[in-house]
Amino acid sequence: METARKQNLYEEVADSISNMVRCGTYRAGERIPSIRAVSRQMRVSITTAMEAYRLLEDRGVVEARPQSGYYVRPVPANTIARPDISKEEMNPVMCCVEEIVDMVFKDSMNPDFIQLGATIPNTELLPVDKLSRCLASSVRRKGDLSVSYSYPGDLKLRTLIARRAAMAGCSLAPDDIIITAGCQEAAFLALNAVCKPGDTVVIQSPAYFNHLQVMQNMNLKVVEIPSNPEDGISMDALRFVLEETAVKACLLIPNFSNPLGCCMPDKNKAVLMKLLAGYDIPLIEDDINGDLCFFHERPRVVKAFDDKGLVILCSSFSKTLAPGYRVGWITPGRYKPAIEHLKVISSLSTSTPPQMAVAEFLAGGGYDHHLRRIRRIYARQVSLLTDAVARCFPEGTNISRPEGGFSLWVEMPEYVDSILLYEQARQNGITIAPGPIFSVRQKFRNYIRLSAAFWSERTHNAIKKLGSLSAQMRKQRIVAESAAGIRKNMVI
Amino acid sequence: METARKQNLYEEVADSISNMVRCGTYRAGERIPSIRAVSRQMRVSITTAMEAYRLLEDRGVVEARPQSGYYVRPVPANTIARPDISKEEMNPVMCCVEEIVDMVFKDSMNPDFIQLGATIPNTELLPVDKLSRCLASSVRRKGDLSVSYSYPGDLKLRTLIARRAAMAGCSLAPDDIIITAGCQEAAFLALNAVCKPGDTVVIQSPAYFNHLQVMQNMNLKVVEIPSNPEDGISMDALRFVLEETAVKACLLIPNFSNPLGCCMPDKNKAVLMKLLAGYDIPLIEDDINGDLCFFHERPRVVKAFDDKGLVILCSSFSKTLAPGYRVGWITPGRYKPAIEHLKVISSLSTSTPPQMAVAEFLAGGGYDHHLRRIRRIYARQVSLLTDAVARCFPEGTNISRPEGGFSLWVEMPEYVDSILLYEQARQNGITIAPGPIFSVRQKFRNYIRLSAAFWSERTHNAIKKLGSLSAQMRKQRIVAESAAGIRKNMVI
Repeated sequence: METARKQNLYEEVADSISNMVRCGTYRAGERIPSIRAVSRQMRVSITTAMEAYRLLEDRGVVEARPQSGYYVRPVPANTIARPDISKEEMNPVMCCVEEIVDMVFKDSMNPDFIQLGATIPNTELLPVDKLSRCLASSVRRKGDLSVSYSYPGDLKLRTLIARRAAMAGCSLAPDDIIITAGCQEAAFLALNAVCKPGDTVVIQSPAYFNHLQVMQNMNLKVVEIPSNPEDGISMDALRFVLEETAVKACLLIPNFSNPLGCCMPDKNKAVLMKLLAGYDIPLIEDDINGDLCFFHERPRVVKAFDDKGLVILCSSFSKTLAPGYRVGWITPGRYKPAIEHLKVISSLSTSTPPQMAVAEFLAGGGYDHHLRRIRRIYARQVSLLTDAVARCFPEGTNISRPEGGFSLWVEMPEYVDSILLYEQARQNGITIAPGPIFSVRQKFRNYIRLSAAFWSERTHNAIKKLGSLSAQMRKQRIVAESAAGIRKNMVI
Repeated sequence: METARKQNLYEEVADSISNMVRCGTYRAGERIPSIRAVSRQMRVSITTAMEAYRLLEDRGVVEARPQSGYYVRPVPANTIARPDISKEEMNPVMCCVEEIVDMVFKDSMNPDFIQLGATIPNTELLPVDKLSRCLASSVRRKGDLSVSYSYPGDLKLRTLIARRAAMAGCSLAPDDIIITAGCQEAAFLALNAVCKPGDTVVIQSPAYFNHLQVMQNMNLKVVEIPSNPEDGISMDALRFVLEETAVKACLLIPNFSNPLGCCMPDKNKAVLMKLLAGYDIPLIEDDINGDLCFFHERPRVVKAFDDKGLVILCSSFSKTLAPGYRVGWITPGRYKPAIEHLKVISSLSTSTPPQMAVAEFLAGGGYDHHLRRIRRIYARQVSLLTDAVARCFPEGTNISRPEGGFSLWVEMPEYVDSILLYEQARQNGITIAPGPIFSVRQKFRNYIRLSAAFWSERTHNAIKKLGSLSAQMRKQRIVAESAAGIRKNMVI
């Protein structure tokens, strides 16, 4: 208990210094107060202050200079502005995704590739041994239960999920929850429960490609709402679309969206909820990255602002515990009968033993400690990856600055064709996620998403390789253009 | 090895005697040769002959009379004819199932009910401890794999399934198999891969209600083909329908269909395959009961006759090992790209640890021994349940005589309303599956399906109760009719 409080304390100290950097109290290159000074100012022990500074280093906010102290980290050599807010035509269009998408997922399971494509967590950061012990002990103790259907899901697990929901500002009962085969099935069920073919769904842009695939499969139309890398979808644009278009549902990742990494501020969440309630439109809220925030208090979910049962919250333990367990959940809200029915007809129930293992893991009490550890590591790796990209990618590259999750959204100069880059990278044993798979209009041709799940010398070299492949495209473009120019002159 | 051969031998002996009974070589009430005589005639040991006779008793084929020998079991007091071949209007009709269906599934998880409704296996007959040990040992040895996605499924498991497929006459490679969350997900994926809303699917009648639910959800039309309780769908009717109707797919349970229990003879399987190949129509073949045949050689699958990749074979370990594990499989045949895609977008992959456990169980080599044991027990329970129904149900009741699986299809006198019976039974703590949920035209009003998964004094009493509830309906009908008669007279 004491340790937990201490850990919260150093995170609070780190957060408050981060905030000062963010508001410009301290600027890039400036020295921040010494550990001793901070300990005095904030009335914490030297150890706590030291822990806080180590966390800030991990997050890439400050850097230590020997014999001199801590400095706010300078923006790397070439500018790393955030990618611009996406610009969208906001009329409904049939959902259609690049076929390349399935390959991105399949490649993610090939151990020969350097994995910068899929956002699958690093197995080394998962509590594998402890989970295995939980699995073994729960099936040993409750064998008969472990071979039986668990519909709507293991009660202990649903109870613990309901308790944890309080941290996201949500008041849930075990009966408000159905266990699903990961967040992917949760979103699949939710979309199928609220939409019919031809219906229109509002999404953010860029959007998560697996969501797009489900919508394409269902013959849905989508409206893409321009989204800001910092605070998510434009509320004005959303308001405009809801006024003009018959929208059937809204599908968003408000916390640390994939791929943009943006986090919707609480005030926008409240506004969003009010807007949707006004039109009686359900929100399918994917919160899979919510627990992976780099700051010590996780953001609230939009569901926290919902008193009408309009929000269908979807999440899972795939990013934090075990993707292969396929344990996620859905809060069906007022769509419970339809979602229950769909779950039963599509798979009857979710596999029981992995649910029991996750319940036992959560009950054991080490989950928050584990979360703090991996958040810290992912924060560090996101910062290292950002640095590497800033250094190795061509001039004019912009990078998102997510405060949770572990993916980066990278905008490259216009001459870079990310589908071509994807193919060339693949030939070099590197996977990336090309921009056009995040859009129904195959936009973001010069964008890629990179995963910071893994970090090693090998990853660094892969980034260098991607940088040089991209730079070559510029030369190829110039050659192609001048060749075209010559041909043009010859014709004249 | 020696034991396995011996066991096969007594089953062979039992089968050959069963066959003689079936063809009338020995008739009900007649004495069959003594154990000593059979041992001599068939050149087997006395022990083997005794085992064979015990098996025949379990199957309800013969009965021992003290000091007298073995006799072919008489048909019980009231006639137990098989239900008649179903009569169908064979034009396509929108798929529509009674809403009561979901309750039948939910009730099956309520331990307070006497379970005669859902066909969920008896947990006491599942190898719970051994599976738990397999699960614990495989995640201990291969922890990293156990937390990772396993798409298209654990390779060892797919390899073992491919090997076992030989017993069903099928030659499969591991790559021909995708692991699914049970047979239910397999059928769901198959239907979604080959059909669009409005398409017409051919099914047998009566049909499995979970299949009907998926088709209703997809807005499919169905044509119900009349089916014989002995050998399944009428090939003539099928031929006629395929000639007259634009059919998109065929969905059948050829081996021990649910609820009818019929098994399609090999020659019909060959004819079916030729017919479908002529029209290029895919067959979704649900073989979930194939391994639960009461005779020692399991029947072949239709897939064994398929050289065009038209058959999508679906099955699982839910009836034999662990329903709660949700481990099933699908052979997508020529529809592989579509089915792979649907699996990925709906749940990414099947939960990994239960797959590893089943693979380890199969590799351990006890599966066939386990199957022989449970087949024998289910055969016995089906026979006991048949007897009880024959004794306790009103006159005019007909009962199917399945040679595999563990459900009985019971036709009752016309005055019995099975939906009403379902409700009355439920009030008495008994679940049954009422006939109309097995039909898209809500037929089979006077039919019920009973599960023989459990057998005890309690089950026997439940059958008595169902019998008396049914008999009361006759009185109620007479009262109602005479009341109507009096009213009629009064008007005149």
